[in-house]
Amino acid sequence: MTEDENQPLLDESGRHHTYTSLNAYITTNDNHERTGSHTTFATGEKLISGRYESLDYECDESEISHMEEKRLGHQHTRRLAVLKWVIMLLIGICTGLVAVFVDFAVKNLTKFKFSYVQNRLDTCLSEHCLFTPYLTWIAINMSFVLVSGLLILWEPAARGSGIPQVKCYLNGVAVPHVLSLKALIAKVLGVIFSVSGGLAVGKEGPMIHSGSIIAGGISQGKSSTLKFDFHIFKHFRTDKHKRDFVSAGAAAGVAAAFGAPVGGVLFALEEGASFFNQQLTWFIFFASMVSTFTLNVVMSAIDGHFGDLSSPGLINFGLFKDVPYMWFELPIFILMGVMGGVFGALFNELNLRLTKFRHHYINRHWVLIIEVLLVAATTVVIAFVLIFTTMNECRPIKTQVELNSPTIQLFCPDGQYNTMATIVFSTPENAVRNLFHSEIGTYKAWSLLAFCIVYFCLTCWTYGIIVSSGLFIPSLLIGASWGRLVGIGMHNLFPSIYFNPGKYALFGAASQLGGIMRMTISLAVILIEATGDIVLGLPIMIVLTVAKLTGDYFNEGFFDIHIALQSVPFLPWQSEVFLSRLSALSVMSAPVTKLKTVEKVETIFRILRAESHHGFPVVDHHADETNNERAGTFQGIILRHQLITILRKRNFISLNDSLRDYLTLDDFRESYPRHPSIESVHLTDEERELYCDLRPYMNLAYTVSHHSTLPRIFSMFRGLGLRHLVVVNDKNEVVGMITRKDLARFRMIHKKGHTSIEELGISN
Amino acid sequence: MTEDENQPLLDESGRHHTYTSLNAYITTNDNHERTGSHTTFATGEKLISGRYESLDYECDESEISHMEEKRLGHQHTRRLAVLKWVIMLLIGICTGLVAVFVDFAVKNLTKFKFSYVQNRLDTCLSEHCLFTPYLTWIAINMSFVLVSGLLILWEPAARGSGIPQVKCYLNGVAVPHVLSLKALIAKVLGVIFSVSGGLAVGKEGPMIHSGSIIAGGISQGKSSTLKFDFHIFKHFRTDKHKRDFVSAGAAAGVAAAFGAPVGGVLFALEEGASFFNQQLTWFIFFASMVSTFTLNVVMSAIDGHFGDLSSPGLINFGLFKDVPYMWFELPIFILMGVMGGVFGALFNELNLRLTKFRHHYINRHWVLIIEVLLVAATTVVIAFVLIFTTMNECRPIKTQVELNSPTIQLFCPDGQYNTMATIVFSTPENAVRNLFHSEIGTYKAWSLLAFCIVYFCLTCWTYGIIVSSGLFIPSLLIGASWGRLVGIGMHNLFPSIYFNPGKYALFGAASQLGGIMRMTISLAVILIEATGDIVLGLPIMIVLTVAKLTGDYFNEGFFDIHIALQSVPFLPWQSEVFLSRLSALSVMSAPVTKLKTVEKVETIFRILRAESHHGFPVVDHHADETNNERAGTFQGIILRHQLITILRKRNFISLNDSLRDYLTLDDFRESYPRHPSIESVHLTDEERELYCDLRPYMNLAYTVSHHSTLPRIFSMFRGLGLRHLVVVNDKNEVVGMITRKDLARFRMIHKKGHTSIEELGISN
Repeated sequence: MTEDENQPLLDESGRHHTYTSLNAYITTNDNHERTGSHTTFATGEKLISGRYESLDYECDESEISHMEEKRLGHQHTRRLAVLKWVIMLLIGICTGLVAVFVDFAVKNLTKFKFSYVQNRLDTCLSEHCLFTPYLTWIAINMSFVLVSGLLILWEPAARGSGIPQVKCYLNGVAVPHVLSLKALIAKVLGVIFSVSGGLAVGKEGPMIHSGSIIAGGISQGKSSTLKFDFHIFKHFRTDKHKRDFVSAGAAAGVAAAFGAPVGGVLFALEEGASFFNQQLTWFIFFASMVSTFTLNVVMSAIDGHFGDLSSPGLINFGLFKDVPYMWFELPIFILMGVMGGVFGALFNELNLRLTKFRHHYINRHWVLIIEVLLVAATTVVIAFVLIFTTMNECRPIKTQVELNSPTIQLFCPDGQYNTMATIVFSTPENAVRNLFHSEIGTYKAWSLLAFCIVYFCLTCWTYGIIVSSGLFIPSLLIGASWGRLVGIGMHNLFPSIYFNPGKYALFGAASQLGGIMRMTISLAVILIEATGDIVLGLPIMIVLTVAKLTGDYFNEGFFDIHIALQSVPFLPWQSEVFLSRLSALSVMSAPVTKLKTVEKVETIFRILRAESHHGFPVVDHHADETNNERAGTFQGIILRHQLITILRKRNFISLNDSLRDYLTLDDFRESYPRHPSIESVHLTDEERELYCDLRPYMNLAYTVSHHSTLPRIFSMFRGLGLRHLVVVNDKNEVVGMITRKDLARFRMIHKKGHTSIEELGISN
Repeated sequence: MTEDENQPLLDESGRHHTYTSLNAYITTNDNHERTGSHTTFATGEKLISGRYESLDYECDESEISHMEEKRLGHQHTRRLAVLKWVIMLLIGICTGLVAVFVDFAVKNLTKFKFSYVQNRLDTCLSEHCLFTPYLTWIAINMSFVLVSGLLILWEPAARGSGIPQVKCYLNGVAVPHVLSLKALIAKVLGVIFSVSGGLAVGKEGPMIHSGSIIAGGISQGKSSTLKFDFHIFKHFRTDKHKRDFVSAGAAAGVAAAFGAPVGGVLFALEEGASFFNQQLTWFIFFASMVSTFTLNVVMSAIDGHFGDLSSPGLINFGLFKDVPYMWFELPIFILMGVMGGVFGALFNELNLRLTKFRHHYINRHWVLIIEVLLVAATTVVIAFVLIFTTMNECRPIKTQVELNSPTIQLFCPDGQYNTMATIVFSTPENAVRNLFHSEIGTYKAWSLLAFCIVYFCLTCWTYGIIVSSGLFIPSLLIGASWGRLVGIGMHNLFPSIYFNPGKYALFGAASQLGGIMRMTISLAVILIEATGDIVLGLPIMIVLTVAKLTGDYFNEGFFDIHIALQSVPFLPWQSEVFLSRLSALSVMSAPVTKLKTVEKVETIFRILRAESHHGFPVVDHHADETNNERAGTFQGIILRHQLITILRKRNFISLNDSLRDYLTLDDFRESYPRHPSIESVHLTDEERELYCDLRPYMNLAYTVSHHSTLPRIFSMFRGLGLRHLVVVNDKNEVVGMITRKDLARFRMIHKKGHTSIEELGISN
C-alpha cells in the first residue's frame, strides 16, 4: 500500500476514486468473485466459513409488529418485564445447581479414586508391588476419560471449554448445536469425567458454556432436541431476546464457577457489550447474583455447615488475609506480567500448531479416542515420575491440615508427607490453593520448576483433545508454580525481607492467565472476587495489563485464535481506521435479487428455490411501469423464513385487490429457531398466479450509501447488531447487500510498518 | 390513546397512516410548530431547553480525514495509542493528587476547628460559658461555608455534586463551562470549605466532577480559560476523543473517592456505555487504577507509614473482617431494601419540591448567600441540641481508640466520652465508620433515631444551596443510622442470636444510597470495594436491587430528577416501544435549509447569518439543472463551524473550476471547542461571487427513511452517538432533520394502564 498519494483525484461524486483505486492493492486469498457463489474451502485462519449464519438483533419495524404492540398494550410490556425477572431467577438457580452437581460428582469420584490408589500405594510400599497401584490408577483414569471422549463423539459441540462458541454466539454468530440440550448433557457429564480422570483440565470454562445453554433453553420454554414445547415465553423467541438471556446465562456460569458475580457481568459485557444497556446489565447482574447465591447455600449445606454462606464459587482460592505489598515490589510484579505474557504467547503458539496438526492428521474417530487415552495415560506416568524424582521432599503434616487436600506419606517418615505427591494427587483446584497458601519452604525450587514445565506441556497437549475441558485452572496452576518460584527466588535474594511466596504464586497465576486469555477487566474482577481481597486488586490489575500488552505483541488471545481457526465470521471490537480505504461498493455482494412490494407468488417461489440468501430487499413495485428492469427505490427487507411462512400460510391476494387478513407475528414465531425449508412448500398452479403483499411484513431496515466506508458500516453492524445491511445509491435504489461475512473478510496486516489489506476467502 | 384500532389503514406506501393519525393524541405542553422556531420558556421538568448543544461522536468520513489518515500512515495510529496511555496515566495521577489535596486540607481544617472548639467547651463546662464556644463554632463554620458559597457565585458550574453535569456530558450534551478550569478550582476549594464548614455534605461526588475536568483539560493540552495552548494532543481535539478521556476522568474520580477502580469503570459504563468498547474500557480501567494507586501511595506516606499501600480511597469504611450472615437474615435485608427505597423516594420528592421552590423564590445572589449562611448556622444549632439532649450517653473511652475520631468527654465522668458528640463533632466519614464498627450498645436507640431524622432533613435542605457538595456520604450516614437502629431492634427481638449492628448499619447505608441514586451495578461494586469484603457482596446487591425497585415505583433517581429540572435533552437508555407510534415525519424538524455540493459563497454567508442550526445537509448540485427548486439527492452533512472556517480561510473557487488546495483537518481543529461566530467573518463583494466546493469537507452522515419510527431512530442516536440525523424520502431527497432535542421531546406517560405520548416544550 503506497502511503504517499495525498491528493486523491475527485471524480464527479467526489468520492469513489480513492477507494476503488485501492482494490488493486488487496491481497486476496482466493479468486472468487463477489457474487455470493463461493468456492469450497476447508476451514482455517485464512478463511471465513460460509457455514455460519449470523443472528439478527435488529428491532422489528414491520407493520404487523406495530399492530401487535398496539393490540397487547402497555400491560403486556410490564408483564414481559416481570417474566424476564422470573426467567433470570430460573437461569440463576439452575446454573447454580448444575455447578453444585458437577462439583459434588467430581469431588466424590476423585475421592474414591485417590483413596483407592493411595491405599494400594501405602500397602505396596512395603511389598514393593508399586506396579499394581500404578496400573489401577492408569486404568481408572483412562476409563473415566474414555467416557468423556465418547460423550464428545456423541455431541461434538461440547468439545473443549465452550468459551469460544459462547463468544461467537454473543458476537452474533449462530454456531450450530451450541445451545442444544445434547451439548449441555455432554458438557456436564464430560467435564465431570475428564476432571476426575486426572487430566490437566478445569471445570470452570465448561460452566460458562453450560450456563449459556441453560439460559437459552429456559428462555425459549422448549427444546428442539426433546421435541417438547411448554408454549410459554413465546414472545422471547427472537434472536434479540434469546441473546440477552444467553449472555445472562454466561454471566451466571462465571458467577457460579468463580463465585464472582460482578466478574460474570463484566465477562458478558466484554464479550457482547456492543449491545450494552443498563437494564440488561442489571438483569444479567441479578442472574449471576442468584446463581452464586444458590451455589453458596447448597454447597455450604453439603459441607455440613448449612446457613453460613461460606463457599460462593466452585473454585475457592482461600482468603488472602492481611497480605500487604510494598511499593518496591511493583517492578517485580511488572516483570512477572512480562513473563506471563511471554509464556502465554508461547502457550498459544504451541497450541495453535498442535491444533493445526490435529486438524490435518487426527480426525478419524478411533484416532481421536486413542489420543485421549494416550493423554490420560501420559498424565499418570508423568505424575508418577514427578513423585519418584521428589520422593525425599517431606514436610511435617500439621501445617497442611487446614487445606482439605489429602496428604500423602509415601516414602516419608511417619508424621510427614510428600509435598509433590500432594499436588499431583489432588484436584487442580486443591493444588492451586496449596501453592497459594502453604508457607515458605514447603516446596523445593527444582521440583516446582519440573512441575511447572511438565504441566505446561501437558496442558498445551490436553486442550483440543475431544473432551470437555476448561483452561482456567490449568493456566492458574502453571502460573502459580512459576510465580511461587519467583517468590522463592526473591526470598533467597533478599533474605532480610519476608516475601510471602503464596502472594507471588497468585500474581504468577494471574499473569499466566492474562497472558493466555488476554482478557483484562473481567479477568481482573474475577480474580479479585475469587481471592476475596481488594487490597491485592491493584497489583493484579497491573500484572494483567502488562501480561496482555506483552502477549499481544506476539500473537492473539487463546480463544480468538481458536475462533479464527474455526473460520468464524467474528467481528472484532472496531475495524481499523485503515479499512476506511474500502467503500461499501468494494465489500458488498452484488447483484442482489430484489422483490417487489407486491410480488407474484410464482416469482417468490422460484427465487427461494434458486437462491440461498436469508434476506431480500423489497423495492417499490411502481418501478415497473416506468422502466421494465427490476429497479425501484428501497422499501424494506424481508427474510427468507418470513417468505416461506407466507407461502405456507397461503397469505395471497389477487392483483388489484388489497390485503385484508394479515398474518400475525405468532405465525412467524412458531417455527423459531428451526425454520422449515422451501422444499416443504408445495403450490398449485392457481396459487402461483396469485400475489403476495409484502408491505405489512417487511422490516424497514437500515440502509447505507454506497459511498460510505468500512469503519462506518462496521460501527453500524456492531452498534445496531445487524444481520443484513442494504447498500443504496444516491437515488435510494438497491445496489448491493452487506452481511457479516463481507465485513469479517477484510483484515489489515502490518508488516515492518508497511500496511496492506488482506481479504480472506469464503468457504462452504 | 385508544388501544383497540388493530387494523391500520394501509395507504400506498403502506405506512404513514398509522403514525400520522396518532399526532392527534399527543398532549403538547406548548403550541410551537415543528419549524425550529421555539417559543421562549423557563426551565422545568416539562421542558427541553434549547440552550444545550449536543456533542458529536460520529466518526468523520470526510474526504480530507481520509487524506490525513493516508498521509500519517500506520505509525501515526500506533503513536496515538501510546499517547493515549500517557494521557490516561496523567489523568490518573493528577486526579489522585487532587483527591489527596482535598482530603489533606479538609482533615487539617476540621482538626483545627474541632480542637479549638473542644478546648473552649472543656474549659467552659466548668465556668458555664457555653455560649462562647457555641458562637465561635458557628462563626468558624459560617465563614468557611461563606467562602464555598462565594466560589460558586464566581463559577456557578461548580454548584452541587457535579454528577448530573458529568452524566449529561457522557450522555452527549455539552453543558456550558462544566469542564472549565474555573469550575475545577471552584469545585475543589469549594468542597474543601463546605465539608470543613460542617455542612451535611460529602467530598466524593465533587471528586468525580473534578476528575472529569482534569481529564478534559489534560487531553486537550490547552485551557480556554487561561488562554494557553501547549500545542500537544492536537489529534484528540474532537468531541469523540474528549468524551473518552472525560469518562476515564470520571472513573478515576470514583476510584480516588472510594478506592474503587472497578466501581469507577462501571460508573463510566453505566453513564456512557452506549459507546462501550473493550479498548476504551481498558484505558478507563488503567486511569482509575493509577488514580487510586497514586492516592494510596501519597496518603499512606502522609499518614507516616510510607510504602504499605493501606488507604486506597478518600473514604475508608474500615475492613469488615469475618462478618458472616445467615440465610435467615436475607428477608430482613430485603425489608431494609424496601425501607431504603421508600426513604430514598421521599428524600428525592422533598428535595425536588425544595429545588422548585428555590428556583422560583431564591435566585438573587444575596438571598442565596444568606440561605447558605442560614444552613451553616442551623447545622451547628442542631448539632448542639443533639449533644445536649443526649448528654448522659457516656461510654468507656478505650473501645474507641482504633477509630481515629476525637472522643469528647463533655458531661461524662473521666475516662468516658459522649457518643453522640463523637458523631456530631467528627467528619461525616468518621461518623459513618463509627456507626459501622463501634460495637453493640454504643448508641441509644432514641438518640440514633433523632440523629437519623434530623440529618435526613438537613441533607435534604443542604443539597441545592450554592456550595459544591456531594451526596454520597450524607446518604450513607442517614442509612447507617437507621440501619444500625434495625440491628439494635433485631438484637432486642432475638437476644439469643448475635446481630452485628455494624453490618446492619452497612446494609442500611447501602439501601439508602440505592434508594436515592438508583444506580445498581456500579454502586454495588463501589460499596463492595470500599468495604473490602466480598462475602458481604451478595446481600449488598440484594439490598440495592430491592431499594431501586421500590424507589422506582415512586419517582426517578435523584440525579435524573435534577437533570430533568435543568431541562437537559437527556436521552434515556432506550425509548419505550410505544413511541413506535411516532414516525420520523412526526418528530423531525422541517423544512431544512440545504446547501449544494458546490455552493455560492454569498448563499452560505447569508444562511449562516440567518440561521442558528449547527449542521446543514448537502445535496447534489445537479439538481438545479433539472428543476429550479433546491431539491437534489442527499450527499452529506456539513457543520456550521466547518463552513465558518472555510469562509475565514477563503477556500473559494470560481465556477467551472475544480478545487486544488484543500484545507486540512488541522485548519478545522485549531479553534476547537470554542468556534468563532459568523459575525467574525467579513467578505468582499468579489469573494461573495465565488464558490465553495463542500465535497471534500462534508461528512457522509447517516440517513434514515421518513418511514422509520422513533425507537429505531433512537437506537441509532444512542448506538452511534449522533448529533444530526438526516431524514430522506424514498428518492433519497432530504425532507427533514432530527436532532437530540427532537427525540428527548417525546415521552410516554402511563396513567392507570392508559398510555399516552407527552410532548415537552422547547425553551430558549
